[in-house]
Amino acid sequence: MNETTITARPGTPFIDIVREFDAPPHLVFRAWTDPEIVPRWLGPSTTTMTVVEWDATPGGRYSYVHRDQDGEYGFRGVFHTVVADERIVQTFQYDGRPQDVSLETLTFEDLGGRTRVRNHAVFGSVESRDAMIESGMERGVRDSMARLEQLLPR
Amino acid sequence: MNETTITARPGTPFIDIVREFDAPPHLVFRAWTDPEIVPRWLGPSTTTMTVVEWDATPGGRYSYVHRDQDGEYGFRGVFHTVVADERIVQTFQYDGRPQDVSLETLTFEDLGGRTRVRNHAVFGSVESRDAMIESGMERGVRDSMARLEQLLPR
Repeated sequence: MNETTITARPGTPFIDIVREFDAPPHLVFRAWTDPEIVPRWLGPSTTTMTVVEWDATPGGRYSYVHRDQDGEYGFRGVFHTVVADERIVQTFQYDGRPQDVSLETLTFEDLGGRTRVRNHAVFGSVESRDAMIESGMERGVRDSMARLEQLLPR
Repeated sequence: MNETTITARPGTPFIDIVREFDAPPHLVFRAWTDPEIVPRWLGPSTTTMTVVEWDATPGGRYSYVHRDQDGEYGFRGVFHTVVADERIVQTFQYDGRPQDVSLETLTFEDLGGRTRVRNHAVFGSVESRDAMIESGMERGVRDSMARLEQLLPR
């Protein structure tokens, strides 16, 4: 299994996630943007995901719900930039904390049949970034990356 | 004339702009979101503005062009949150630097017939924030705020 690196330097409003996949950019990008595929890997392995809206174009919106035995958790955002197989810039909001919107820049780097995905997220404040870290997002990210790896063709 | 405060602490990716207006929130909010009114005040006083797209709803896009004697400058973004008379969360991009997308949170605070507008912008890096400061945005902001003040009813 490839390693997932999560970096959140103290005192900054940034979270950086880096992960490589043994599949080419167009397949990884498709898994990230196709609303038929995303629910199969996004989120902690203890949750199921339902897409409400998903329009991966500039100005398109997305929203989805994660459900586990304890409840429902809604998320939403809009796409600012979508360059096929290369780059996505999008907003992100957990509906439980609608004041804490973040901006994510995802890049899909071609490593010659393999792909390095970087997700650079920036929050409105260090406190807002810290709250996201303390929410336990790390488990969700690591689960998601492992589930996506299982899904991609070898 | 009311004062415009622009704060950009060294080493952070934030820009904070605060300005009061002698008009109630609904009029200030309308001036900020109505594509018939925005071109009359947004930008340096030496430019003219043309709206290309303007849909101030969640997921709506905006784009516009500033023109002066030296050339044309395009800007664009998407609206994430729009709460009438209260709050806007939107992305912002200067087309000359499409890698440097920022996220702006605008709030319209009711001071009893007057309005305090705060614009909190966060960039993907300190360097990207510094580049925006060095582009001379301060003149554009101060001109815009003065032009808007002239436009609002007394």
